Amino acid sequence: MIITELIEKKRDGGEMTAEELDFLVNGLVNKEVEDCQMSAWMMAVCLSGMTDRETSDLTMTMMRSGDTVDLSDLPGIKVDKHSTGGVGDTTTLVVAPLVAACGGTVAKMSGRGLAHSGGTLDKLESVPGVSVEQPLERFKQIVRENGLAVIGQSANLVPADKKMYALRDVTGTVKSIPLIASSIMSKKLAAGADAIVLDVKTGNGAFMNTLEDSRELAAQMVRIGDALGRKTVAIITDMNRPLGMAIGNGLEMKEAIDVLQGRIPMTDPLVSVCLTLGTQMLLLSKLAETREEAEAKLKEALVSGMGFMKLRAMLKALGGDTRFVDEPELLVRTSRIIPVYADKRGYIGAIDAKQLGLAACLLGAGRLKKEDSVDPAVGILMNKRYGDAISESDPYAYLYVNSEDRLEEALELINAAVTVTDERPDELPLVYDIIE
Amino acid sequence: MIITELIEKKRDGGEMTAEELDFLVNGLVNKEVEDCQMSAWMMAVCLSGMTDRETSDLTMTMMRSGDTVDLSDLPGIKVDKHSTGGVGDTTTLVVAPLVAACGGTVAKMSGRGLAHSGGTLDKLESVPGVSVEQPLERFKQIVRENGLAVIGQSANLVPADKKMYALRDVTGTVKSIPLIASSIMSKKLAAGADAIVLDVKTGNGAFMNTLEDSRELAAQMVRIGDALGRKTVAIITDMNRPLGMAIGNGLEMKEAIDVLQGRIPMTDPLVSVCLTLGTQMLLLSKLAETREEAEAKLKEALVSGMGFMKLRAMLKALGGDTRFVDEPELLVRTSRIIPVYADKRGYIGAIDAKQLGLAACLLGAGRLKKEDSVDPAVGILMNKRYGDAISESDPYAYLYVNSEDRLEEALELINAAVTVTDERPDELPLVYDIIE
Repeated sequence: MIITELIEKKRDGGEMTAEELDFLVNGLVNKEVEDCQMSAWMMAVCLSGMTDRETSDLTMTMMRSGDTVDLSDLPGIKVDKHSTGGVGDTTTLVVAPLVAACGGTVAKMSGRGLAHSGGTLDKLESVPGVSVEQPLERFKQIVRENGLAVIGQSANLVPADKKMYALRDVTGTVKSIPLIASSIMSKKLAAGADAIVLDVKTGNGAFMNTLEDSRELAAQMVRIGDALGRKTVAIITDMNRPLGMAIGNGLEMKEAIDVLQGRIPMTDPLVSVCLTLGTQMLLLSKLAETREEAEAKLKEALVSGMGFMKLRAMLKALGGDTRFVDEPELLVRTSRIIPVYADKRGYIGAIDAKQLGLAACLLGAGRLKKEDSVDPAVGILMNKRYGDAISESDPYAYLYVNSEDRLEEALELINAAVTVTDERPDELPLVYDIIE
Repeated sequence: MIITELIEKKRDGGEMTAEELDFLVNGLVNKEVEDCQMSAWMMAVCLSGMTDRETSDLTMTMMRSGDTVDLSDLPGIKVDKHSTGGVGDTTTLVVAPLVAACGGTVAKMSGRGLAHSGGTLDKLESVPGVSVEQPLERFKQIVRENGLAVIGQSANLVPADKKMYALRDVTGTVKSIPLIASSIMSKKLAAGADAIVLDVKTGNGAFMNTLEDSRELAAQMVRIGDALGRKTVAIITDMNRPLGMAIGNGLEMKEAIDVLQGRIPMTDPLVSVCLTLGTQMLLLSKLAETREEAEAKLKEALVSGMGFMKLRAMLKALGGDTRFVDEPELLVRTSRIIPVYADKRGYIGAIDAKQLGLAACLLGAGRLKKEDSVDPAVGILMNKRYGDAISESDPYAYLYVNSEDRLEEALELINAAVTVTDERPDELPLVYDIIE
């Protein structure tokens, strides 16, 4: 096959065969296809699209580009959960322990934060001692003993995606539904779970800004999962605001612990989304027959403290210092806490969640570039939510900081991100759709 | 400016500002923009297009990326001529001397052959001793003394185009009218001529296969030239067959000499296209008032042998051994000449000129890869043209070869390229349009 002819085929709107996709993807990994060629092809995909058949075939060839994890020797139905990335969105740390507490088997490989969105690995590492790099056998042992383990991807899981993602990141080709779907699903499929629950975020803090795009991405991923024999459900949830109150790794770990210790009401948006996700995970795991039964089990796991014990046991098994779990204030000790005030009385009428996420990055909570290091304790703790009344005297947020280097810049972003209105805004939906 | 945002802008169909185009093009030359980023942007241009304003601005910034040639100290109106590339198309070697013989000033920088299409520099070098690399002052001196010089581009002429073309060649982004137009026009403008005549080839042996695309490319280049203050005319000519009978560097040089020495009739397609091009060059040079006057002058320059003397003087000035000009059979001495016969009696009903060009490459006349070397003597000499009657006993072509390495392959291509029909085919137009 001639590489330029394959690129031209997609440029001209043609449909690639499985063999042609194999040739491109394997060629990229083997360095027979140049970065500039893959970038041009991916831009052609952005503009010409791909059929479902192409997207499935691309996902398969990406998955096969490296190691795949075999979880078949673990008991029960292995269920995975993945979020497309949001702000203040610490659902994994809440829902995975709850599902494990209900008898589920959660063997999950997770990622790091990128750009404005947080990543579970960074949050796990906010607990001193935790190592997210674990040999496969140790990973399985933790799952076997605890029902739950969340670790980093093994180095050779879907190397094609690592290369493709690095190129997409710098070539303006991130925003393509077939490329996003195949990137996510190739990793989920390679990680070996039997069933997958996808949390597709939609809104100003998500990578998909419109409900229409989010729906299409969700539907495409569900079709890929089903086509490849893994039962997949996608839930479309709101990201026009941070989901929880905390944005930052230690702050979000503390928030998850607070939820699991019953210090946050069940009506809280974060808890509510966790119950929705957990319900689907229990249904796919065949540990509940109905949504009502699943939700009741999850609530019982929360109230009883069983969920908390699962999280604590996992963090301990990963090497974490449990003093930080038992006294979560230790996770967020910074040299300064800076209150942020509105300049007028009113309501929080809109929040640009992406800008808040970027502001947290500026404070040191996330990476603006891949090579940046993160400070686990810093970030933003919201004191008011979307729709709340605010005033000049009552801080709407607190910044946890250890350096004032980019504080001014962060404050400007935060002030611009929060719109104060005279009228209380309409409530936002939390869950838009469940696609199965 | 953020590079990915510029790429996304074009991906989403936006219009780039002049500053944004400067940033991308200069960034590529300065290595601040990566090859993969430029490739993705160029693919976005292929699919989203560019406005005339963008194409002019892109041309300008490409032109300014390196040296520009100042010809203002040469007398008269400097007129350049450029072909978009064809097969058996040795017009420059005929028309440039004729125009010089009529008093014109032709200071031309030319290119090498690529893929199936020939290049004037390779043809010049078929004369032993010729050096196409000349210092600018020597180039101007030849023009001053002779009215004519054709040399290679100086190394730092439009470096942005060199990089962009090398990327386009491997990323399936050659076939974009704004990218082709800016590539050609940036070089023509940097080379300093006051007026430009473009020969836009159309048909199976051209880079533009349809008349519609050729017309659009021609119109776009004329608009760019006019917008930047250089009078530009484009002639759309047929490339559904080789223009002349010779395909190969020495063979084409010999054919040009044969024309200029009056051994080929004025009605020959090659001569006819040369007269059309030369007419426009004389009109733009203000050396004739009407087409008729221009054509009469050109014919006189041909018949009188003045054109031939201009070519000879230029080749001598470039270091060429004039014995090869005076005895052009010396240019095409190969170890073997292989006649090619049709397998049935009939007419040449169609010729795939591109395949003939590729066959000549296989014989060693051109480059399939940039680093290939060429054999000046080898190639294909047609003995019959499109529309001619042929038979099994009368060769329709002769192959001039020095090696039989890829002879079988070349013969297969040639046989497949020539379609024998029972009926004589309709005549093909030679000149489709003149766009000014």
